[in-house]
Amino acid sequence: MQNFIFENPTRIIFGKGTISRIGREVKRFGSKVLLVYGQGSIKKNGVYDQVVASLREADISIVELPGVKSNPVLSLALEGIELARKEQVDTILAVGGGSVIDTAKTVAAGVKAEHDVWDFFTYKKAIKDALPILTVLTLSASASEMNSAAVITNEKGARKFSIRSPFIQPKMSILDPTVLYTLSPEYSAYSAVDAITHALEGYFNNSEPDSLLQDRLVEAFIKTIIENTEIILKNPTDYNARANMMWSATLAFNGLTTAGMGSVSYPAHMIEHSLSALYDIAHGAGLSIVLPGWMNYSLEKNPSKFARLASEIFDVKEINDKEAATEGVRLLKSWFAGIGSPTSLRDGNIPESDIEKIAENAVELAQVWGLKEYTKDVIVAILNRSR
Amino acid sequence: MQNFIFENPTRIIFGKGTISRIGREVKRFGSKVLLVYGQGSIKKNGVYDQVVASLREADISIVELPGVKSNPVLSLALEGIELARKEQVDTILAVGGGSVIDTAKTVAAGVKAEHDVWDFFTYKKAIKDALPILTVLTLSASASEMNSAAVITNEKGARKFSIRSPFIQPKMSILDPTVLYTLSPEYSAYSAVDAITHALEGYFNNSEPDSLLQDRLVEAFIKTIIENTEIILKNPTDYNARANMMWSATLAFNGLTTAGMGSVSYPAHMIEHSLSALYDIAHGAGLSIVLPGWMNYSLEKNPSKFARLASEIFDVKEINDKEAATEGVRLLKSWFAGIGSPTSLRDGNIPESDIEKIAENAVELAQVWGLKEYTKDVIVAILNRSR
Repeated sequence: MQNFIFENPTRIIFGKGTISRIGREVKRFGSKVLLVYGQGSIKKNGVYDQVVASLREADISIVELPGVKSNPVLSLALEGIELARKEQVDTILAVGGGSVIDTAKTVAAGVKAEHDVWDFFTYKKAIKDALPILTVLTLSASASEMNSAAVITNEKGARKFSIRSPFIQPKMSILDPTVLYTLSPEYSAYSAVDAITHALEGYFNNSEPDSLLQDRLVEAFIKTIIENTEIILKNPTDYNARANMMWSATLAFNGLTTAGMGSVSYPAHMIEHSLSALYDIAHGAGLSIVLPGWMNYSLEKNPSKFARLASEIFDVKEINDKEAATEGVRLLKSWFAGIGSPTSLRDGNIPESDIEKIAENAVELAQVWGLKEYTKDVIVAILNRSR
Repeated sequence: MQNFIFENPTRIIFGKGTISRIGREVKRFGSKVLLVYGQGSIKKNGVYDQVVASLREADISIVELPGVKSNPVLSLALEGIELARKEQVDTILAVGGGSVIDTAKTVAAGVKAEHDVWDFFTYKKAIKDALPILTVLTLSASASEMNSAAVITNEKGARKFSIRSPFIQPKMSILDPTVLYTLSPEYSAYSAVDAITHALEGYFNNSEPDSLLQDRLVEAFIKTIIENTEIILKNPTDYNARANMMWSATLAFNGLTTAGMGSVSYPAHMIEHSLSALYDIAHGAGLSIVLPGWMNYSLEKNPSKFARLASEIFDVKEINDKEAATEGVRLLKSWFAGIGSPTSLRDGNIPESDIEKIAENAVELAQVWGLKEYTKDVIVAILNRSR
């Protein structure tokens, strides 16, 4: 195990009927909130009304920043920064999924910065302060509700980049699984793909060979996500299935599974960011296209680890590592397809003739993230396995 | 999954060579520290010197409270409270294992209370404030370094009781696995028993039937603790084995595995507290006596869960639940014996004729903890299975 610092102070309030606590929780940090949300689904499913009622009861003033879309864009975050400054809000409340929370995080850091907030994403500047962020989660996948990362797309140049800082870690997140009852089958599937990919990238891309404890945790989360997603797709209002999926997705990317693993990289996410930035495809859908291709490209470097996954998750046994590894990828890809997530560029309506262009976009992020082995040629080779 | 609040803000600094950071960490909270430690092992293994050097470098004044013994006693905590008040320390630093940390927690809460600190342990009063606590861990088992609980023995009446409050959760803990290199085989074994028992009590004694995610986490920790303890007993300076044991023991009782499980009870700990209070036996040694007896007494109520444990941990398969459950308990007991931890009252030099007396002591804690089903007769029945 390698040296690490683990610190995750986010307070999680989990369960049925917990949204009514949001007013009291916000009150601990301020009295005027920027309420960030998306395209209006929270108005249809009643979450907006519950949040506003609780905030009003706690005498919190509300300024609204609606309109966050998936693959959230810098321009809206810049609007949010301006609005937060003008209205002098003291707290940011995100009500939504990862896109909404990441927009809220960008605003929270941007308000306190005297330079272009994008400088944080290109690692030219470090975040040194931020407004307190609280969240009410309505889509489980990113774990942004309990981690210190955010991803934003800069429409100029179609760059989907990320930041990470303890200052933007949410102080408190409310996770009520019943808000997921109205989530579509497509997004329920994409959520599962995203959470599984978070866990798997850490599992495969770390610098620590002694990882059995963390491997077991990853396998626990993946098994739980797989079995509960299957239940959810049959019965979207199964409380325990939604709850297990929700909590697993949070734990799968809150720092627990990567603590002690040394340097961890996220190449499938890196390549997917280019798909999202260029084609505005749902992040989970992009991942189910990229991940199996990445796995097929990578498995020869570490067949025993891929064989372990095949054995633990899909019970593939009694064949050699290389064959088991390949069979494991085939079964995972087939599981992604079975829950309705695309598993090839063609499935995702992305022209195969664009592979070069996608790779050129991805290489730019590879440089920012310091993933030197991911040259354009390597990325093309991976995308060729995702055709 | 049941509703829960999960909040664990302790900053963990983990790895080789990390003790030298303690001065800087203390500096974030104060400038005059009460240094709590035990019987002097930290002077032999060099940890004391490392801590003091780092504190001096950071200009921290030091007041010492040495002499904590295992099964830490109220009288020393009372001395510590008086000393902390007289010297006006602003921070408490525990350098030791669970006994030292729990003494530090009791002092930290007691300094701020205007009444007898024991009132917290009898639940007559609630903790409302405490001095900040930091720790340098030298014995892995209790997870006190990353949780909000403390256990103290009141010598008057031989009562070993506990407290729990977010105010006494350590702000920061340093876990350097190399400090465990000099830990004796006996205490290495007792540590494993304690950590396994923490995880198993939550596994069996919760009010939530939908616990597959948490079950898998518990199983991951127990497997990791078992395999690494076997390595440690052969090679006490195996870094990865000490590191995996250390981090697993912390995670096994930091709130992660019980979040969502509803009300969780610790009957084996409850009964063991009487053994420690009356006979001053090491806590882990007491647990390896009580736990198998408790399991044999309890398995008929929930044979399938005990059978699951047998299958997951000891690969017991293809027999009916009741038989598998019994076989699992036998194998766990045999594993405890194999690592050198006592598994019967006789092994622990506790007179079997004292069973009634022990049960009378344990019933008092059962009442404080609200475990109504643990009458004196039930406790006697359990202890009869631990003869």
